[in-house]
Amino acid sequence: MKIITLLTDFGTQDNFVGVMKGVALRINPDVNIVDISHNVRAHDIFDAAFLLSTSYEYFPKNTIHVVVVDPGVGSQRNVIAVKTTDYYFLAPDNGVLSFALKKQEIEAIINVENDEYFLKPLSNTFHGRDIFCAVAAHLSKGVSLDSLGPTIKNIHQIHIPAPLRRSDVLIGQIVYIDRFGNLVTNVDKEALEGYACDFKIKVGDQIIHGLNKTYSDAPNQTPVALIDSFGYLEIAVNGANAKDYFGLDKKDLIEIFQC
Amino acid sequence: MKIITLLTDFGTQDNFVGVMKGVALRINPDVNIVDISHNVRAHDIFDAAFLLSTSYEYFPKNTIHVVVVDPGVGSQRNVIAVKTTDYYFLAPDNGVLSFALKKQEIEAIINVENDEYFLKPLSNTFHGRDIFCAVAAHLSKGVSLDSLGPTIKNIHQIHIPAPLRRSDVLIGQIVYIDRFGNLVTNVDKEALEGYACDFKIKVGDQIIHGLNKTYSDAPNQTPVALIDSFGYLEIAVNGANAKDYFGLDKKDLIEIFQC
Amino acid sequence: MKIITLLTDFGTQDNFVGVMKGVALRINPDVNIVDISHNVRAHDIFDAAFLLSTSYEYFPKNTIHVVVVDPGVGSQRNVIAVKTTDYYFLAPDNGVLSFALKKQEIEAIINVENDEYFLKPLSNTFHGRDIFCAVAAHLSKGVSLDSLGPTIKNIHQIHIPAPLRRSDVLIGQIVYIDRFGNLVTNVDKEALEGYACDFKIKVGDQIIHGLNKTYSDAPNQTPVALIDSFGYLEIAVNGANAKDYFGLDKKDLIEIFQC
Repeated sequence: MKIITLLTDFGTQDNFVGVMKGVALRINPDVNIVDISHNVRAHDIFDAAFLLSTSYEYFPKNTIHVVVVDPGVGSQRNVIAVKTTDYYFLAPDNGVLSFALKKQEIEAIINVENDEYFLKPLSNTFHGRDIFCAVAAHLSKGVSLDSLGPTIKNIHQIHIPAPLRRSDVLIGQIVYIDRFGNLVTNVDKEALEGYACDFKIKVGDQIIHGLNKTYSDAPNQTPVALIDSFGYLEIAVNGANAKDYFGLDKKDLIEIFQC
Repeated sequence: MKIITLLTDFGTQDNFVGVMKGVALRINPDVNIVDISHNVRAHDIFDAAFLLSTSYEYFPKNTIHVVVVDPGVGSQRNVIAVKTTDYYFLAPDNGVLSFALKKQEIEAIINVENDEYFLKPLSNTFHGRDIFCAVAAHLSKGVSLDSLGPTIKNIHQIHIPAPLRRSDVLIGQIVYIDRFGNLVTNVDKEALEGYACDFKIKVGDQIIHGLNKTYSDAPNQTPVALIDSFGYLEIAVNGANAKDYFGLDKKDLIEIFQC
Repeated sequence: MKIITLLTDFGTQDNFVGVMKGVALRINPDVNIVDISHNVRAHDIFDAAFLLSTSYEYFPKNTIHVVVVDPGVGSQRNVIAVKTTDYYFLAPDNGVLSFALKKQEIEAIINVENDEYFLKPLSNTFHGRDIFCAVAAHLSKGVSLDSLGPTIKNIHQIHIPAPLRRSDVLIGQIVYIDRFGNLVTNVDKEALEGYACDFKIKVGDQIIHGLNKTYSDAPNQTPVALIDSFGYLEIAVNGANAKDYFGLDKKDLIEIFQC
């Protein structure tokens, strides 16, 4: 049984996700379809790229990861299939794979053009159903990557901000906010390894001293910084919503000072 | 492996959906249960009917479609099982199958009365668990339709509004609003085929000129009309929520003028 | 195919649930993972305990029920695996199993310590992924309970309020409010059996006379009391939200008077 994962901004109010699963099951009744999330903010390619990058490695080898956050659906943007050493990815060519592919060795990139594997009639607005899930299901049944279309060399990239070093200060950026309001930054644990165990993190108007291991290491309603479960510096507030507590949002900066 | 789909207004906060799946798996451990949506507005039979009608055909033949939007649960309303050429449907007899059955040839309608296939003790308020999922699981295991109860001739219908033609004007109605705020009308693409390529659509106080292919054909924050992926005229606003933009809601009218 | 159920407060916006499923499928590709709910209120152990207690029995024997509502993640709290006659339970030792285990005969309680079955590196903040789902998947593949860690005798309990009898009055408490706003109390149907068929229920400032069978037995917008599908006295308002109607919340009291 092959696995297809779905990461979309379709929400769970309508029937979009169910219909996509129906299409895949009609093509391959044995496929196992796993939801990563359907509640990516509408059209937020960056959020989807981040969520994919922290998800895909936890799945079995040869899982087919399908991402449909696709504001350009029906326009001239391409659909791409990417084979890495370990996984398959199927997505619009809008940069949504940028984060994930940084950590994978790419074996082939295909411009998915062969409409033999599309649902007909092809709509202009629901390629999640007509192209992505149909093609993924064919792939899961053993259709070869080559048969999907011609090989291409380059795909669109989105900018992934890196932490900046300005003399003694490391400047990080909030790249994701989870449902608990925890602020995930682009500072990974490797970037903090050069530091002495003592440093200060400036978040909004407040200073957090050093790292803790987990949320409950801080007193209730108190800010805490930790390396989160995906390896990134995360700012949280024990028992509260850090986004609301600090009034910060995605793209806002934090500063790390050596003591 | 047989497929059961679920379309309900039970939401995903409580354990209702999980419990229904448990019941089905206890009866048939091999069944594959696929969610269409559990976020139909509470008791909104019309929304459920519309969502079912645009979903069921994408699933493999002989899929068992279960709809539990059932404000009359525990009262005298019947539970019906309908066999069409391609599918099985199981629902309360409240009209929720009206849209879907317009496009399917009906082979049999059964009044589901045989409590041999119900969960015991039978509750008065959760027939999704005690009747619908239990019976669907038995069906998926090969129990014959006939054994569920007597054949009946008629089932309840709900009114499905058709577009009205008034001299030169075609008057359509908003029948569904998706999570992006797109306004889906009851005007299907066949109804527009008689028109010259140029027509105007009056939506609220605004005029939209002709159809585009996809959302991004319109400038950002601009209204656009298109045939959606299920074949209906849809009013959207590129990059925005058309419901909020126009201040319109379900049942509101739009007008189509030949130029 | 073994079944794992998941009951968490992780929500469905982020990728937490998808990642947990990936981990389980990597360990046991044949496991069937069923969501009970991921929308337990953040850190609400009581709600999770109640939902588990009304869910687990509907699943096939030997289902592995995993609960991750775990405000103490990464602190010194234990992870426990409990084997009852019919099921396996895996949860933080914070009392979340209290309701469910009242009705099951316990065969063994294990302090899950053997990190051989954990995902590495073990994070401090996402044991749902690194411990709970990994261990559950190993269990589903046949790993013995004994190999997970030492047997222990006692686990944490949370207080489950029982109805109080004060002379002629039975005082119940609201223990759960579902997505429709129905008020579920701790008064089970057995507690009401001693009563004559006529009694009055005081809810907020109003009196409800006796029980009805189902919501629609009451006129529209009218309060109704019934035994719900899990056997508890429930206060509802036909066609409306009882929580809003009465202005009541969890832990608020109701009173039952013999006539």
